[in-house]
Amino acid sequence: MIEASKDSDASSRLTCGMVGGGAGAFIGDVHRKALAFDAKATLVAGSFSRDPSKSLATGRSLGLSADRLYGGYAEMAASEARRDDKIDFVVIVTPNNLHFPVAKVFLENGINVVCDKPLVLTSKQAEELKALAAAKNLLFCVTYTYTGYPMVKQARAMVRNGDIGEIRFVTAEYAQDWLATALETTGQKQAAWRTDPEQTGIANSVGDIGTHAENIVSYITGLSIASLCARLDTFVKGRRLDDNATVMVNYASGAKGLYWVSQIAIGNDNDLRVRVFGSKGAIEWAQQDPNYLKVSYLDKPVEQLSRGRDRLYPDAAGTSRIPGGHPEGYFEAFSNVYRSFCDALAKKRAGQPLGPEERDFPGLDAGASGVKFIEKCVESSRKGGTWVGVD
Amino acid sequence: MIEASKDSDASSRLTCGMVGGGAGAFIGDVHRKALAFDAKATLVAGSFSRDPSKSLATGRSLGLSADRLYGGYAEMAASEARRDDKIDFVVIVTPNNLHFPVAKVFLENGINVVCDKPLVLTSKQAEELKALAAAKNLLFCVTYTYTGYPMVKQARAMVRNGDIGEIRFVTAEYAQDWLATALETTGQKQAAWRTDPEQTGIANSVGDIGTHAENIVSYITGLSIASLCARLDTFVKGRRLDDNATVMVNYASGAKGLYWVSQIAIGNDNDLRVRVFGSKGAIEWAQQDPNYLKVSYLDKPVEQLSRGRDRLYPDAAGTSRIPGGHPEGYFEAFSNVYRSFCDALAKKRAGQPLGPEERDFPGLDAGASGVKFIEKCVESSRKGGTWVGVD
Amino acid sequence: MIEASKDSDASSRLTCGMVGGGAGAFIGDVHRKALAFDAKATLVAGSFSRDPSKSLATGRSLGLSADRLYGGYAEMAASEARRDDKIDFVVIVTPNNLHFPVAKVFLENGINVVCDKPLVLTSKQAEELKALAAAKNLLFCVTYTYTGYPMVKQARAMVRNGDIGEIRFVTAEYAQDWLATALETTGQKQAAWRTDPEQTGIANSVGDIGTHAENIVSYITGLSIASLCARLDTFVKGRRLDDNATVMVNYASGAKGLYWVSQIAIGNDNDLRVRVFGSKGAIEWAQQDPNYLKVSYLDKPVEQLSRGRDRLYPDAAGTSRIPGGHPEGYFEAFSNVYRSFCDALAKKRAGQPLGPEERDFPGLDAGASGVKFIEKCVESSRKGGTWVGVD
Amino acid sequence: MIEASKDSDASSRLTCGMVGGGAGAFIGDVHRKALAFDAKATLVAGSFSRDPSKSLATGRSLGLSADRLYGGYAEMAASEARRDDKIDFVVIVTPNNLHFPVAKVFLENGINVVCDKPLVLTSKQAEELKALAAAKNLLFCVTYTYTGYPMVKQARAMVRNGDIGEIRFVTAEYAQDWLATALETTGQKQAAWRTDPEQTGIANSVGDIGTHAENIVSYITGLSIASLCARLDTFVKGRRLDDNATVMVNYASGAKGLYWVSQIAIGNDNDLRVRVFGSKGAIEWAQQDPNYLKVSYLDKPVEQLSRGRDRLYPDAAGTSRIPGGHPEGYFEAFSNVYRSFCDALAKKRAGQPLGPEERDFPGLDAGASGVKFIEKCVESSRKGGTWVGVD
Repeated sequence: MIEASKDSDASSRLTCGMVGGGAGAFIGDVHRKALAFDAKATLVAGSFSRDPSKSLATGRSLGLSADRLYGGYAEMAASEARRDDKIDFVVIVTPNNLHFPVAKVFLENGINVVCDKPLVLTSKQAEELKALAAAKNLLFCVTYTYTGYPMVKQARAMVRNGDIGEIRFVTAEYAQDWLATALETTGQKQAAWRTDPEQTGIANSVGDIGTHAENIVSYITGLSIASLCARLDTFVKGRRLDDNATVMVNYASGAKGLYWVSQIAIGNDNDLRVRVFGSKGAIEWAQQDPNYLKVSYLDKPVEQLSRGRDRLYPDAAGTSRIPGGHPEGYFEAFSNVYRSFCDALAKKRAGQPLGPEERDFPGLDAGASGVKFIEKCVESSRKGGTWVGVD
Repeated sequence: MIEASKDSDASSRLTCGMVGGGAGAFIGDVHRKALAFDAKATLVAGSFSRDPSKSLATGRSLGLSADRLYGGYAEMAASEARRDDKIDFVVIVTPNNLHFPVAKVFLENGINVVCDKPLVLTSKQAEELKALAAAKNLLFCVTYTYTGYPMVKQARAMVRNGDIGEIRFVTAEYAQDWLATALETTGQKQAAWRTDPEQTGIANSVGDIGTHAENIVSYITGLSIASLCARLDTFVKGRRLDDNATVMVNYASGAKGLYWVSQIAIGNDNDLRVRVFGSKGAIEWAQQDPNYLKVSYLDKPVEQLSRGRDRLYPDAAGTSRIPGGHPEGYFEAFSNVYRSFCDALAKKRAGQPLGPEERDFPGLDAGASGVKFIEKCVESSRKGGTWVGVD
Repeated sequence: MIEASKDSDASSRLTCGMVGGGAGAFIGDVHRKALAFDAKATLVAGSFSRDPSKSLATGRSLGLSADRLYGGYAEMAASEARRDDKIDFVVIVTPNNLHFPVAKVFLENGINVVCDKPLVLTSKQAEELKALAAAKNLLFCVTYTYTGYPMVKQARAMVRNGDIGEIRFVTAEYAQDWLATALETTGQKQAAWRTDPEQTGIANSVGDIGTHAENIVSYITGLSIASLCARLDTFVKGRRLDDNATVMVNYASGAKGLYWVSQIAIGNDNDLRVRVFGSKGAIEWAQQDPNYLKVSYLDKPVEQLSRGRDRLYPDAAGTSRIPGGHPEGYFEAFSNVYRSFCDALAKKRAGQPLGPEERDFPGLDAGASGVKFIEKCVESSRKGGTWVGVD
Repeated sequence: MIEASKDSDASSRLTCGMVGGGAGAFIGDVHRKALAFDAKATLVAGSFSRDPSKSLATGRSLGLSADRLYGGYAEMAASEARRDDKIDFVVIVTPNNLHFPVAKVFLENGINVVCDKPLVLTSKQAEELKALAAAKNLLFCVTYTYTGYPMVKQARAMVRNGDIGEIRFVTAEYAQDWLATALETTGQKQAAWRTDPEQTGIANSVGDIGTHAENIVSYITGLSIASLCARLDTFVKGRRLDDNATVMVNYASGAKGLYWVSQIAIGNDNDLRVRVFGSKGAIEWAQQDPNYLKVSYLDKPVEQLSRGRDRLYPDAAGTSRIPGGHPEGYFEAFSNVYRSFCDALAKKRAGQPLGPEERDFPGLDAGASGVKFIEKCVESSRKGGTWVGVD
């Protein structure tokens, strides 16, 4: 049986602000619900839109004081930094191209950061943020949602504990169909910015979902990519960026991997699926059925591990909220990312040192790795699908 | 694509209190998270435990003012009723035997009620609450969680629209395995009270999960039970109440039904599954895979309707929060029940009349129907599995 | 790895004849293919139709000698009985109402019998055949196909070995949709005779598929029915017999069971599914995915046993023909029934005694049990769904 | 409803012989059962083993005349060619390295050929057989079993009819786990020869199962490979050939493909799975669940086409044998390959011309394409995973 998760004591609750996420934006609402879920942090400030009146309207509907609603993110960073009750962290949910300048100014003002993925547009930017966060001793979380699922944490713990032996081969696929037609020409906003190089960077499918594939494999297995060979495809006529991609990967350990991501795979909603094959066993996880893990061992029947029913490693068990058979989903996973981050931040605020196990949330290393992955995939594909080294 | 669900404007937010749900109680935490999800109501008062110090501790950890933390529910009802800013509704999450007295005193004090299921212990109590709520013109919600799933609402809309023709046969099964052994003898609290007639009433499995089966069939199909024939089993030695039950049902319309519920079905976590067969088609929904609906029509391939991907009826679409393939689960369903209730309450508070479509949440009729179902199943089984009429 | 199954040595091959199964009949062709599969017996004689010219045409197309093609079954039985090379057994694939007279005359003439199910129309007929076969010392096989699946044999072996403890509850359901409309009014032959009491007997769905449910539970668990309570439904207007049925069962051991069969369950092709819940574990098998067995034990992850991959009990392993992942289906199951029967018959012909383990094929006891089941279901339903004892 | 498949009239039945497939060999038995299934051809001659006494023993157990049992395949070809009742075709089920010499000598002797895959060891050999068969006007079938499944034929018909629009992307994966350990060192015969370059050729996994992936994509889509980039892996220490491989494919049409095959994918028995994504829809088929086809169209719910239940194109419907929900499997698919071949051969024997639709069985072009695929994959991989053209 599962204990109720502890809400943080109200007195110690963290506060945060948000940049982006105005009315109508999908992901801003998801972040707010994920924050509210465990009541670890309270949203008290925001710059929800470049248009001050819209920002004000969104903030008011959320019950925020007018004096903490800002028209611009730079003003917000500076103003908050001067307050005694300044926010503990900022949440960045703008289009990709704004991640860097927003994150930079908040870090410069001494404020911790939570940022959506992919982190930034170039490895140079990523390195700059890493240096800045280190210099300022600030925490930085990149919201790779899927790391928050308990069964993903279980998979990681199983690999770490050697349950499936030495890793040999990994497949990750992420199939969607929402861009199977030229949706960006119909006025659909998300399709428009995601396929626009100015706002999204040098890759679309590889940036949006390829980085999720890269991240979840890295999170579960700890393998680092030594080289890769990528083919980026654009199947919908007139589209400016990739909508499908295949990447062969060689890991530093000698293991091999294969990633396939697609936004034109008709019949697939959001089918992220990871399989890890080792010398003694294998695990398979599918995001659309996230409460289960298929586990196979040599000479044994295939098993289905159930969250909430079966015995899990502590990391997984600790993020499982309700009994087996009561489905947890995307919001709960998102909340777990925030929970890890907020717990670490609370500990840091209390002056306690953080061990590696307390940095369970994806940070700047994961974010930078994703940006590097995008760059190398594009480089390989532009060279005709040749192998390129990844340092 | 899905619009962000609207948070209610902070100024119009409802307030509520809770009875039961102290530290360690599972369902109290679920209710609080479900409330927080859409920010439709704020928890401001509570009597979380009979032990005042425990109630105080829980309340403080939740950030509540000490002046709205109460040792007893009667005191809470009376005190709140006198306040200008009295709570809009109370949430009752105690063991079953307290539902009636708590609900009664809050209704008497003019406060709307949300109560966990099964509603009360006897039909007489249910009728008394119905009369009281009507006399006081108060809203009453019974939290049959599974009615909150968008695909359950889709199923209901399809039946109402005649998509599958005239209903012929319905099966509902609800299989769990948590009581496959004598868990109640090990100190496990929930097992102890659920198998104790004094706290849980005259039935265990039929009361706890049988009522869910009865309710979800009623919610989806609108069929009313004319007679039933039940066999209640107790398979674990020493257990005082049923842990498995089969119920054959005749509906008033001439349709027939079959319900099976079990807590000893090893290998099943929380497998509620409903199938509705009509003259033109059929629908099937399983709570453990709640984002999909299997739909079959004569002479057509079987279809899988996906929440967030496929076109749904308005009731279903309006409670779907995120795009297809991003799993929504138990918490989101729970939140939808609260959302319906809070929207109706807000409208009522604003003096607007409520149409039937605005009473989408399960109310006292559903609650009373569940209690009647329990009574009739027990009666039939005690008579050796004979048919008994259900008025 | 799996050894090739041994074809019988040609010299010792059995011979057989067939009654019914003329051109266009579905099940006669299935029987012939099942016979040919393992080459255990050669079809050499037949009375394929009441019309001698049709019988001749079918026989010739199968390469049979004209002197062993007969216009009537009685003539065939008498003529074959006089031959030195008389057939070892006859296969009866006529409509139900002819099973009894055909079987009787072949038994009287000293010829072993294979007969399709349900065995006969009344328990009295079944008893008469049992007495006759015993008196003549002849073997009799009733082709309950589903007993031939390796994973069904595995389930039986697991129950016998106590792997899932003491049996508590069993469910069997068999859902089809081919009679969801009044197909019998369209000239479809099988629908016509199956819904015609003169040809099919007192029940349709209970006789055709209910007996399969009853048989497979009996085969797997060995439980015998002490009493039952049945409700037979006719949902399609104008239909003369049942097209849906629910049966609650009490076994002599104290275990309980529930069977549901339907021919109006739109979206279901031939979905026979059996679940057996014991005190230590549970097994589940579905005919539409027959190469796997879901196995659950207390406090362990759910397992999926794979035919050809996982270690099976000898009965199951011995009837598995090809490696895991190479699907075996309906024909192979049918062939296994014939293989068991022919192996027993060959042994008997060689004068060797047969142990119980060599009577693995369903015989007259199973056939008689099915007929009794039909009678008792109809009796219970006619009495309004009351409990009736089954001796 | 499905008509019984017609057995061929006995008088016109074809005869055949077999090379290889002695006692204990797996695939020889499968071929014999597949032949017997439809009774289209009778096995009358054989050279089942290089050891004449073993060949004799196998032949006798199968009921063959001693005068048509041969010690060597060359003798068999010559002797049969001289007979008036010579075999219509030979079936070659030896290890790969013997396919070429055996096929060659039978063709030279004017006898049609059925040969297991992969066809031969080199493209040069394949071209020689193509020239020889053309010169002699003989039919040649390569038993790519999976082309025999009705739902694979349905997929092909759907693509040809444009149901899913222009093909964009194809994935094929074939995952097994039987070589996850060094099985070849344990005396397991099949593992020994398949991983031995002398007997199996230049590739193991790519030859054994990679060619199946290549063939089934070609069969369904008709796409031809213009270039490919392959990485062959050997994960089990000491193994002499590949046990896992990834191949990126560019088709001549502009479509792209991705194949992954593995024999070390623990938890997978024989999981061949093909997905074809077009501009209007997509289809997915899995060999382990072969009676269904997942079909998706833009803006419609995902459908599950069921063999025997749903309306299929004629090619598919014509090879479906029994009603929906009665599983057909590997043997039936194999039989369908033989059925197509035998029907074509009978027609040819009768002097009738063969249209393209009557060459539904995989022939020398398919066989040669598979050999070329193996060669190009090995070439690409040896060059470090570079792109190589495929003419």
